[in-house]
This record gives sequence, structure tokens and C-alpha cells, in this order.
Amino acid sequence: MQFELIQSTEILKRTPETVTALLAGLPEPWVTQNEGPETWSPYDIIGHLIHAEETDWIPRVKMILEHGESRPFEPFDRFAMIERSKGKTMSQLLEIFQEMRTGSLAELEHLNVTETSLSKRGKHPELGQVTLSQLMATWVVHLGHIAQIARVMSKQYGEAVGPWLAYLPVLTR
Amino acid sequence: MQFELIQSTEILKRTPETVTALLAGLPEPWVTQNEGPETWSPYDIIGHLIHAEETDWIPRVKMILEHGESRPFEPFDRFAMIERSKGKTMSQLLEIFQEMRTGSLAELEHLNVTETSLSKRGKHPELGQVTLSQLMATWVVHLGHIAQIARVMSKQYGEAVGPWLAYLPVLTR
Repeated sequence: MQFELIQSTEILKRTPETVTALLAGLPEPWVTQNEGPETWSPYDIIGHLIHAEETDWIPRVKMILEHGESRPFEPFDRFAMIERSKGKTMSQLLEIFQEMRTGSLAELEHLNVTETSLSKRGKHPELGQVTLSQLMATWVVHLGHIAQIARVMSKQYGEAVGPWLAYLPVLTR
Repeated sequence: MQFELIQSTEILKRTPETVTALLAGLPEPWVTQNEGPETWSPYDIIGHLIHAEETDWIPRVKMILEHGESRPFEPFDRFAMIERSKGKTMSQLLEIFQEMRTGSLAELEHLNVTETSLSKRGKHPELGQVTLSQLMATWVVHLGHIAQIARVMSKQYGEAVGPWLAYLPVLTR
């Protein structure tokens, strides 16, 4: 599919509610277990979504609109959330994420992005030339982290399912 | 993790809300697009979740409690939902799924499953001997379909993200 702005914001505004429905009030091990060394728990993933909201999406949209390719984006730190989430509960993180996403979408509306501005170009520090619509599509595809949360949770019962393992590809991805 | 009954019902009761938050009211292409030939759209997946609720989980729990290994489960038809969903809107399917899951959990409580009954055995038509706890853990792991829905949606922008494809493993799983 081609990138489409209104449909994309429809998806983006649903993400906080979705992860809140999935995670709010769940017993501790289900939010803190991960997939093994160097992998993320649902708690880590929500921290990452918050950090991306703070430093990635809208800041980069603005960078493209204001500076085009003349200034590269700030590099995104994929592990910054580990420090920043410290001491917060899962419920607090979910609330912060909801507030930040709502704020991002309000700011996006304020920026008045049009079909024309979607083809504007920016400079990614590693990937080079990118367009505003590619950045926005990547924001939408970040809902892959919902897939990751559900997968991480599923894997906690990877042994408990016994012979059903053979029918459950999610456990071996 | 070992299977644990109360935590499992906490997860099971959250699935309808989660998929409703993700899908209710989304523009048409986002619920009907799939990952290519012979794959499922979010619409198909919700139909599958409903069909599993009708014919798989509680019917099999009862089969184990009433008949043990003396009667095998009815085979599960993974494609039955295609006929059964016909003519229904996504919103209708989401409501049906919510009602059915609520009903299943009420029935589970009524069946009064205990730690002792969790080790009871049943007979799967293909996998052979299984336990009630393995069946229940499989029900929980069925939340892998939330991962599938988010992945299928993400893939619709597989081209729109341009060079970011390299950073988005969800698009190539």
C-alpha cells in the first residue's frame, strides 16, 4: 500500500489503547520476562515506544520540514529507555506513552503536513536520504512492537504447551 | 514458566479488548489485506479466534474432564471461519469474540478447574496424549494471533518505509 496520512493517524492513535488493554494490571512476570539474553520484555518495549515518541518521530518530522537534507537527524539510541524507565511501574509507563502519543498526534496536526510535504526529504545519519512519507510509514510500522510484545508473552509458555509446540509458529520465531 | 491458572485467565480476558482497540473502526484495507496468497487478514484471524472459542478451548476442556483419554477431541478446522464469517462486519466479529471469550471464562470458572485437574489427560486426534494444563497453556499462547495481526498490518507499509526496511525485522518475518 501507498502511505496515506489519515489512515496512518487512525492506526497511530490506537497503539496506546492496544498495549494498555494487553498489559495493564498483568501479574509481574508477564511484563518483565523476555526472550533470553539481550532481548526485551514488554516493560522494555513500552519504554522504547516512549523514547521513540520523545526523540524520534515528531522531532524528525520537524527536522525534515525545517531543515530538509541540510541537517541529519539525531541518531536514535535503542537502549536509552533502560535508564529512563528505572523506578517506574508498568502502569506509569503506559500512561506516559498514552500522553506522549496523544501529544505527538496533536503536534502533527498542528504542523499541517500535506500530501505535498510528504515528499520532502531529510537525511538519516546512517540510511542517508529519506522522505517524510517514509518516516511516517516507519512510525506506523513501529506497531511491529505490538507483535513483539505478544510474541514475548507467548514464549513464556513455550514449554507449558507440550506437544502443541508443533502447531504454534509464534514460539519459534 | 510453569502454567498458572489465575494468571492465564488474566491474559485470556484481555485478548478481546486488545484486538478491539487495535482494529475497531479501522479503514477497510487495513482489516482485509493479508500477507499474500494463502495467508490471513486481521478479519480472517478474528474469525479464527471466534471459531476456536466455539469448537476448541472449552469443548476440549470438558472432553478431558468428562472423558479423559477415552475419547479423542474433535479435529479443529483451521479454515471453517471463512464460511462462518461471511456477511459480517469487523465490528460484529469483534463483538462476537468479546461475548464468546467472556462466556468461555465464565464456563471455565463454573467447571471449577483445580491444580489437581490440570494434570488430567486427554487425547488429541493427531498429537496423542496431552494434559489439561497443556491445553490451557495453548489457549494462552493463542495470543500469538495478536502478534500475527500486528505483523500483517505492518507489512502493508513494507514498501512505503523505503530504506528503513533494514531496521524493521517485522516486515520480513
